[in-house]
Amino acid sequence: MTSREAYNWLISHHTETTYLASTEALLAWDQRTQIPRAGHAHRAKQLAALAKLLHQRATNPRIGECLAQVEGTPLDTDPYSVEVANSREWRRAYERATRIPERLAVGLAEAAAEGEPAWAEARPRGDWKAFKPYLARLLSLRKEYAQMQEFEGEAYDALLEDYEPQQTTALLEPIFSELRAALVDLLRRIKEAPGKPRVELLRGDFPKVRQEAMIREVIARLGYDFEGGRLDSTAHPFEISIGPGDVRITTRYDESFFNPAFFGTIHESGHAMYEQGLPAKYWGTPAGESASLGIHESQSRMWENMVARSLGFWQYFYPRAYEFFPAFADSDPSAFVFAVNAVKPSLIRVEADEVTYNLHIMVRFELELALFRGELSLDDLPAAWDEKYRDYLGVSADGVANGVMQDIHWAGGAFGYFPTYSLGNLYAAQLYKAAELELGALEPQFASGDFAPLLGWLRRNIHAQGRRYQPGELVRVVTGEELNPAYLIGYLRRKYSQLYSL
Amino acid sequence: MTSREAYNWLISHHTETTYLASTEALLAWDQRTQIPRAGHAHRAKQLAALAKLLHQRATNPRIGECLAQVEGTPLDTDPYSVEVANSREWRRAYERATRIPERLAVGLAEAAAEGEPAWAEARPRGDWKAFKPYLARLLSLRKEYAQMQEFEGEAYDALLEDYEPQQTTALLEPIFSELRAALVDLLRRIKEAPGKPRVELLRGDFPKVRQEAMIREVIARLGYDFEGGRLDSTAHPFEISIGPGDVRITTRYDESFFNPAFFGTIHESGHAMYEQGLPAKYWGTPAGESASLGIHESQSRMWENMVARSLGFWQYFYPRAYEFFPAFADSDPSAFVFAVNAVKPSLIRVEADEVTYNLHIMVRFELELALFRGELSLDDLPAAWDEKYRDYLGVSADGVANGVMQDIHWAGGAFGYFPTYSLGNLYAAQLYKAAELELGALEPQFASGDFAPLLGWLRRNIHAQGRRYQPGELVRVVTGEELNPAYLIGYLRRKYSQLYSL
Repeated sequence: MTSREAYNWLISHHTETTYLASTEALLAWDQRTQIPRAGHAHRAKQLAALAKLLHQRATNPRIGECLAQVEGTPLDTDPYSVEVANSREWRRAYERATRIPERLAVGLAEAAAEGEPAWAEARPRGDWKAFKPYLARLLSLRKEYAQMQEFEGEAYDALLEDYEPQQTTALLEPIFSELRAALVDLLRRIKEAPGKPRVELLRGDFPKVRQEAMIREVIARLGYDFEGGRLDSTAHPFEISIGPGDVRITTRYDESFFNPAFFGTIHESGHAMYEQGLPAKYWGTPAGESASLGIHESQSRMWENMVARSLGFWQYFYPRAYEFFPAFADSDPSAFVFAVNAVKPSLIRVEADEVTYNLHIMVRFELELALFRGELSLDDLPAAWDEKYRDYLGVSADGVANGVMQDIHWAGGAFGYFPTYSLGNLYAAQLYKAAELELGALEPQFASGDFAPLLGWLRRNIHAQGRRYQPGELVRVVTGEELNPAYLIGYLRRKYSQLYSL
Repeated sequence: MTSREAYNWLISHHTETTYLASTEALLAWDQRTQIPRAGHAHRAKQLAALAKLLHQRATNPRIGECLAQVEGTPLDTDPYSVEVANSREWRRAYERATRIPERLAVGLAEAAAEGEPAWAEARPRGDWKAFKPYLARLLSLRKEYAQMQEFEGEAYDALLEDYEPQQTTALLEPIFSELRAALVDLLRRIKEAPGKPRVELLRGDFPKVRQEAMIREVIARLGYDFEGGRLDSTAHPFEISIGPGDVRITTRYDESFFNPAFFGTIHESGHAMYEQGLPAKYWGTPAGESASLGIHESQSRMWENMVARSLGFWQYFYPRAYEFFPAFADSDPSAFVFAVNAVKPSLIRVEADEVTYNLHIMVRFELELALFRGELSLDDLPAAWDEKYRDYLGVSADGVANGVMQDIHWAGGAFGYFPTYSLGNLYAAQLYKAAELELGALEPQFASGDFAPLLGWLRRNIHAQGRRYQPGELVRVVTGEELNPAYLIGYLRRKYSQLYSL
């Protein structure tokens, strides 16, 4: 077997696996948007059967043999060539999969497929007791999973590695700590500022059908391709890729509040534009995949906040907005932009402003770490949650529904996922700065309705790269330096100093 | 390995296969109801990857070894015990699968996944030329498939066997011929009858939202369980089972014509109630599956025609109908029932009345047979189609969209499927008669809103049996005699003699 033959076998094996895995994406989309109530038990079984199959394929010993051949006589010397990047990622996935027995892989899929609907049912009632057994099972399986992976010191790092390769607690803690200090200081100054945004502008009568019409127009203008996607409504918005030409998003409408659907959909369309910009010719291999969850989040947050909450954006879209919602005509773009950027500590992460958002993540990161260090039990989790919210955000939950049960992530066993949200914000600010160095100031372009230059830059520098680089490397290659929290801190200070006249 | 061990392995292998196969059902449902335009190419690849996997699982040599053990020392002597029936069906499926190379199994899945959207796009334009290459590929693959199966004389029988075990051209031809003669005679007498139904009652203004509300109420009353299903709208209505607790139906609304959505949905709910009544404890094995397509169709046609086009049904539902559609208040149940049973030869099978419907099937059956006997080429197919429509129904198509391209079946490679529709009508009449022998006259029960006795009878005698009996045997066991066209002929003669005062 030559290295070329081995590589070709790996391509074909993984491409076929990816086709099968992509049916899992459809099962998940349907589970959250379409499935009838009585269909959940069967869906959990389908997902478990698929997880078993995918685990078998991921641990096929022939992968190890072919990888050894390709690694022994590499096809390319460039460490970031498609061939070398694919081999690196296949090796990583193979090692991680072979450390996990089938029983555990299937158990995790089953527990997640049962946990999510259990959470969805228990949350509205605030029924922590009903949900806790599911969470306990997931936590115990994830702990077992983490112990089977390789890590130094922190078991939690084994989970981080799945979502954000090469990130560790040791790397994140100083960055998060610098960010937190800056945010707490900025928040204090904002609270003391005399000027207040007219947030009542965003409350009123926003019929779903008009919201949807406006949103469809806006995200199509930004660059989301509806020919290769669709927009539905769900309780919990998400983006999901079934495959090339089929990248779906969902949103949630609040007919008395403008923000959730509008900014939520732009957020999801940011994820979707990334997926729609991945190199289709490498589909089925790592080179055709997104770089990481953090890089993914950098795309959604950039479009949601740095673009759609900018003055330039609203200089262009405001006249259109008051055609859809005539009440807006009483205001102007500047007052509107101040309103959509209002800072107010709140209980709910997905409704948080840019200044407080990362504090919500710190809460989760620290609690997850405590759970995996064995310093916190599930019984004490709700109280620990509430305490941190009081400490960092100065708010108190009125129950678990808006407290510890607000997110779906843990219900699917996704511990270690939350830090990627803050990483996304950090990456976004650093990438945006690099884009402006090349393209010039972006807001004047937005003000003329030109979003294509930014999208084009992201397409070339991020989307088209697939997973050739690991996330940290990608940031370094594209921006010329390591991840640096100064970009996000600087962006937030400038923006909010201006808005609040600090 | 004991027979019990072998049997248990077969159960577990096939159950897992069925979970994986049931993801195929979701892919198909989504392909017809939700998928974005650009997603079709990927969907075809997903379906092909799944077909390859399922073919590999279906031809696993261990199936043959375990079957040999179980057949050598059977677990039960009752030929219709669950164990014996499962072994019989596993053997049948294994033999049929192992005769087909993987290349052909995958090729058929791919050609079908490409053929259906190609048909959906070409049909509205009446573009036979654009569709023909897809059809040619499917026909050629199906001919190759048929040649690889065992059959005596007719290659077409190899296809029939997939849809309706133990049915052959030789068995069908005399039955169909007797039926055709009777229908042609009945149609002639109806055409000469002086009384005419007031079909204009069914034309007017039927807003989709009201149609849907009425339909949901009616099918829930008949016994369709919405907790374990859902109703969507599509260009081409269908029923599909994702699994226990998830049996979906679709319909099509015509806002100026009452019939299509109303009777179409009841038809699909008939299929769905069968699926919802299958024994869940045997799910994943043949004992938990429907007996055949013909038996399936007997359920849909019985509810659509024998129930929902009966006077008893409308004595109960008519007062409710004119709450939804006040224009109906100008009529009465008898006139309405005459209208919904109006006989009129037409071009479109799915819109055909009970008297002409089977003539549409004869056209397709005879053309398929000619294609597989090599007596007809695809180039000559449209003209041959039109000629038979003139001969049997006295109508001429205005183009291929309402002619040879009207059905989706061939676009998915489903040659040999159409005869199961006529078999369904034949079975339905014979089963209905048997039900009345036990339950007494059914129409007075319908007139009181009592549909549960009929559904209960079908649950016990048909649904709960799964695939323990082959379709011909099931009819014999339940009705006490072989399939006999006299039941359908008698039912139609009685019903239409009364309606048209013949």
